[in-house]
Amino acid sequence: MSKKIAILTGGGDCPGLNAVIRAVVKSSLRNGWQVYGVLQGFSGLLDPENKVIEMNEEHVRGILHIGGTILGTTNRANPFEYVEDGEKKDVSSRVKDNFAKLGLDALICIGGDGTLSIANQFSQMGLPVIGIPKTIDNDLASTVITFGFDTAVNNATDALDKLHSTAESHERVIVVELMGRYAGWITLNAGVSGGADVILIPEIPFNMEYVCQKIESRYNKGRKFAIVAVAEGAKPKGASELFSKGKGEEGRQEVVLGGIGEWVANEIRQRTKRDTRTLTLGHLQRGGTPTTFDRLLSTRFGAAAVRMVKDGQFGIMVALAPPNVVAVPLEEAIKNSKQVPHDSDVVLSARQIGISFGD
Amino acid sequence: MSKKIAILTGGGDCPGLNAVIRAVVKSSLRNGWQVYGVLQGFSGLLDPENKVIEMNEEHVRGILHIGGTILGTTNRANPFEYVEDGEKKDVSSRVKDNFAKLGLDALICIGGDGTLSIANQFSQMGLPVIGIPKTIDNDLASTVITFGFDTAVNNATDALDKLHSTAESHERVIVVELMGRYAGWITLNAGVSGGADVILIPEIPFNMEYVCQKIESRYNKGRKFAIVAVAEGAKPKGASELFSKGKGEEGRQEVVLGGIGEWVANEIRQRTKRDTRTLTLGHLQRGGTPTTFDRLLSTRFGAAAVRMVKDGQFGIMVALAPPNVVAVPLEEAIKNSKQVPHDSDVVLSARQIGISFGD
Amino acid sequence: MSKKIAILTGGGDCPGLNAVIRAVVKSSLRNGWQVYGVLQGFSGLLDPENKVIEMNEEHVRGILHIGGTILGTTNRANPFEYVEDGEKKDVSSRVKDNFAKLGLDALICIGGDGTLSIANQFSQMGLPVIGIPKTIDNDLASTVITFGFDTAVNNATDALDKLHSTAESHERVIVVELMGRYAGWITLNAGVSGGADVILIPEIPFNMEYVCQKIESRYNKGRKFAIVAVAEGAKPKGASELFSKGKGEEGRQEVVLGGIGEWVANEIRQRTKRDTRTLTLGHLQRGGTPTTFDRLLSTRFGAAAVRMVKDGQFGIMVALAPPNVVAVPLEEAIKNSKQVPHDSDVVLSARQIGISFGD
Amino acid sequence: MSKKIAILTGGGDCPGLNAVIRAVVKSSLRNGWQVYGVLQGFSGLLDPENKVIEMNEEHVRGILHIGGTILGTTNRANPFEYVEDGEKKDVSSRVKDNFAKLGLDALICIGGDGTLSIANQFSQMGLPVIGIPKTIDNDLASTVITFGFDTAVNNATDALDKLHSTAESHERVIVVELMGRYAGWITLNAGVSGGADVILIPEIPFNMEYVCQKIESRYNKGRKFAIVAVAEGAKPKGASELFSKGKGEEGRQEVVLGGIGEWVANEIRQRTKRDTRTLTLGHLQRGGTPTTFDRLLSTRFGAAAVRMVKDGQFGIMVALAPPNVVAVPLEEAIKNSKQVPHDSDVVLSARQIGISFGD
Repeated sequence: MSKKIAILTGGGDCPGLNAVIRAVVKSSLRNGWQVYGVLQGFSGLLDPENKVIEMNEEHVRGILHIGGTILGTTNRANPFEYVEDGEKKDVSSRVKDNFAKLGLDALICIGGDGTLSIANQFSQMGLPVIGIPKTIDNDLASTVITFGFDTAVNNATDALDKLHSTAESHERVIVVELMGRYAGWITLNAGVSGGADVILIPEIPFNMEYVCQKIESRYNKGRKFAIVAVAEGAKPKGASELFSKGKGEEGRQEVVLGGIGEWVANEIRQRTKRDTRTLTLGHLQRGGTPTTFDRLLSTRFGAAAVRMVKDGQFGIMVALAPPNVVAVPLEEAIKNSKQVPHDSDVVLSARQIGISFGD
Repeated sequence: MSKKIAILTGGGDCPGLNAVIRAVVKSSLRNGWQVYGVLQGFSGLLDPENKVIEMNEEHVRGILHIGGTILGTTNRANPFEYVEDGEKKDVSSRVKDNFAKLGLDALICIGGDGTLSIANQFSQMGLPVIGIPKTIDNDLASTVITFGFDTAVNNATDALDKLHSTAESHERVIVVELMGRYAGWITLNAGVSGGADVILIPEIPFNMEYVCQKIESRYNKGRKFAIVAVAEGAKPKGASELFSKGKGEEGRQEVVLGGIGEWVANEIRQRTKRDTRTLTLGHLQRGGTPTTFDRLLSTRFGAAAVRMVKDGQFGIMVALAPPNVVAVPLEEAIKNSKQVPHDSDVVLSARQIGISFGD
Repeated sequence: MSKKIAILTGGGDCPGLNAVIRAVVKSSLRNGWQVYGVLQGFSGLLDPENKVIEMNEEHVRGILHIGGTILGTTNRANPFEYVEDGEKKDVSSRVKDNFAKLGLDALICIGGDGTLSIANQFSQMGLPVIGIPKTIDNDLASTVITFGFDTAVNNATDALDKLHSTAESHERVIVVELMGRYAGWITLNAGVSGGADVILIPEIPFNMEYVCQKIESRYNKGRKFAIVAVAEGAKPKGASELFSKGKGEEGRQEVVLGGIGEWVANEIRQRTKRDTRTLTLGHLQRGGTPTTFDRLLSTRFGAAAVRMVKDGQFGIMVALAPPNVVAVPLEEAIKNSKQVPHDSDVVLSARQIGISFGD
Repeated sequence: MSKKIAILTGGGDCPGLNAVIRAVVKSSLRNGWQVYGVLQGFSGLLDPENKVIEMNEEHVRGILHIGGTILGTTNRANPFEYVEDGEKKDVSSRVKDNFAKLGLDALICIGGDGTLSIANQFSQMGLPVIGIPKTIDNDLASTVITFGFDTAVNNATDALDKLHSTAESHERVIVVELMGRYAGWITLNAGVSGGADVILIPEIPFNMEYVCQKIESRYNKGRKFAIVAVAEGAKPKGASELFSKGKGEEGRQEVVLGGIGEWVANEIRQRTKRDTRTLTLGHLQRGGTPTTFDRLLSTRFGAAAVRMVKDGQFGIMVALAPPNVVAVPLEEAIKNSKQVPHDSDVVLSARQIGISFGD
């Protein structure tokens, strides 16, 4: 039976977005369906004439490995709290009406926390919604992994690789601030894969004394350099909100000024008198060509969403439960975040090979 | 309590070997243990004076991202069927004796089918053995994934990416033969991630007619090129042993001559009259720097093995059961291979986006 | 003064083609000119209604780093010897007429030997033609370097890097056949950069005895592996046409069958009894994202061509004479090919560090 | 005739250093010479017992593609102004004496401005010195290009590539500060290759008004993002020393705090009200695996230096004059720096395709 479905993306850039869109479009067309792309997230559904376009094979040709999203700029507008004429309004019914007018049978929403929460609200209003999780931080409990994360870890590891020779040649401590405000997955994985000496993550409050001890012990052994990987949300033991103010969009901090990386570097410099530099990777982590893994996962997520539309499964989110992609209730999925457990075997392994968490 | 442990690798090259060795050495040293590297697989234990060396931090410095293995050349010698003076002998007791003479408390064996089967035999003879799986083909049922596989898929995808523009510019069909004699994982994953149009794997016997139909349908739509990814063990429906003879070491075929890739290319050329070329990736898939994922997994496997030595767990193999690394009985692990299930969601997803399996 | 110019590409795929096209289109549009893309090389000018399209900024957006060519498939048709209705005809006057009908002021031709020779013939017939050299082999004397070459060398070096660990781990000789039928530049540069032990190029006929001596001397020193880089046009001393027959399009040989790489590998295997494997890189060398260097050179070539149109300089080819891009007479440029001189300092340097040329 | 030569490196990290050292060592050994590595630059010659080591093939195995330098940490100590016991002294005669005691026939010095100036002073004192230029900024007039530069441009371009999709998805202006205090080569080349919209270099003082005009014109055309590449030494028109104070080692500024990138971003943010972010690449540019080009150039430089020792040519520096590596007088070489000429065809080409230099 022919269907009409729409796809939208919300929130920040994430490697693999185009691969998801490609899979949704190709799978839908092969089912004989019509598929529409919604530009600029949910706000596109407030202006369907200009921002909802029918998609064909041509739109998704050659985009499997291209970063960004062909659905134009991401957008965080929330129809339940929409700012119009200087006021916040609930315009969700307009979205619902337009959905009906367009004759749509399903709405596939690719997004993070924010976007999926909105998707869930629409689901509860009766819209046939399917969510595809997009969180580069991999902080969602309902899925083993999300697309974009492998690319981010890869980009961060690549940076750590590059910094090694320079740190060694110049006898320096280099502190690299990586993404991860609430969850340290990127920093943990990249830190281990990139040979960091110290890894500081939000889940394990650190003590500068132990951080400096680790660095000194290296210098004393004749290894006169060190690499410190710090998640943007890492905090010294006892600190409360010291480092979390003044952050940008969704709390993502992309400017070094006053960031935890710089703070840690300053402390190391003062305490050890070692030549210490800092670097904030910021946007470099989330850009570029998605890795092979992310292209595959994105394709699987997109195709699975279309299978679920076919099966009439709504109000759910696709998730990876190896070796399968499964459906989990959207309501539940958005509630459970995933932090690095202190007894995670990655943490244990890191400690075993001598990496310090500053605790 | 101080321990003396040894580590050996057997079988072919696999990206991540050095990262495993590094993790074992670093973890052991931090436990205050002595750790020995055995050169040239099990045969090194027949000549401990020359081929068993004590390892320290210096040996594993800077090797996290280096391909190959610092334990020298791989070796497939089997002490239970050892060729000496032109005869096959069982020299396993000499291995056992040397193990005792060296005062070893544990032997960590990194290897595939062959090596782990030997390890299991020694385990049954009473040696305290731990296996770390090494199969670039990812064909082991007891672990969700093995190290080296992600790098191989990545290398294969990179090749498919490169071939795309040339196939398109020259209006050609390009057939790429990838690794995978019994299991099609590399070809399946790389095929999806690299945008192949046809994927042929051992698990799904193919029909040249359907392969050519897919190609023709592309040309008819104006897409005048096609990429066909063929696993070395793929077979046309009904073929028995047609393509499996004359292969090299462990059945791995690295020369195009008479390979399935060339056979498929010839068939396409004759049936469709399209300009068709073939390429065998061979060694290019298993070489080079391990990916971030493989560095991490290798480190986790190595560290987990040392934890198991500490816990006195032997006769087991480390395995990934996300999010944990666990121990599975070696005896069982070597028995269960893993092929691509026909209803795997990767296969389903591939079909949904229009990829043909020739069936 | 406003102008109308056209651009076409001929011959095989070459990384950087899109960057040249982008530079020509952007530069022309900023001059207030109209710019037309001709599809399928010179044959596009025989069918201007379907194959000559006006180009705008949208056409060249996001293509700087994309391989292939947006001007569709390459094409080697020669209007001076055009095959129509089963006969070879000279249809060059039709091209000239169409050029006039389109009201074109200039034709920029990107191509190799073949395409530039045709371009030169049209130039002599009075068409305002500018050539941009495209030879991945870098075998043109009039320019220090051509775009695509750096990417090809890079891809070849990357392959040599990957083969190293496997050759070493498996104690093997690996023979890699690289591009270069008449000129050994790719093989020479990649061989040195990728750490090959033996480099065989068309310019230096080799002797298998010396090749094998080099390999044996490595094994005797305990370095039990070797990498041999062979250009497809390399020949043993005294051989005449032994290896040059049966090659494909423009003499490019992409199938290993009967190639020089396989021949060399067989000889090594028989003479040294060493485990020897062979691999033909083929299309992998000319595909993929252009390197930074090639993107820059391509952009410079494209922009320079537009400057020359503005200056009314025709019958010329753009060329790199560091630090400048200059114009050289097309007539001359197509005559002078460039081979590796025996006393090139690259050859000398390679010999100094112990690389054998088999002579 | 057998010789004894020494090699030292001074100054900062530079991709290709190991490839130079490898070429010098291999070439010397094949000449039957002895070759010594001096640790920690010129200061190593003050302590020959601990810091001058004889080198063999083993030392340089597998380092062709490894970043950093096996000669240990770089060092900027100047024997003519050596700080000892809290005083500056001229200890050059001790260097000369040790050189004699070691029985050395030549000293090959790899370094930048500082190191080569010292080398020149020793040359004038009669030491047989050969210089190999090492300046990642490529600001030396006597050689067309220096090793490390291609890798730096490549790393910078890679970063620009990654930032594109994010800038576009988030509708942002991203300002990237790149290396280049006195010369804008890295920023110019990476800017063109990486598709920057604005390039600001020391050679062309900029006007923020024009910079913002360029950005606004993009947004007005519907391209709602922009990439601005700024060299660390770029200055607004009329500014004198505003941005050059407080810089680190050799004036290299690696911390964003108060850097020109941040200043430019602030100005753009205030003037255009566009969401603007900044990023300083810093050490990421000079680290990592050298590109193919740099490995080749480094090998040629190292081998050429050994040829010059053989020929008894001293007081010279190796330099690239395509297609040859030549010797230029050291005295002269260190005097002539190379900045981007305003009429360089790279600048012209960049302007033609619409890149603004803010002038």
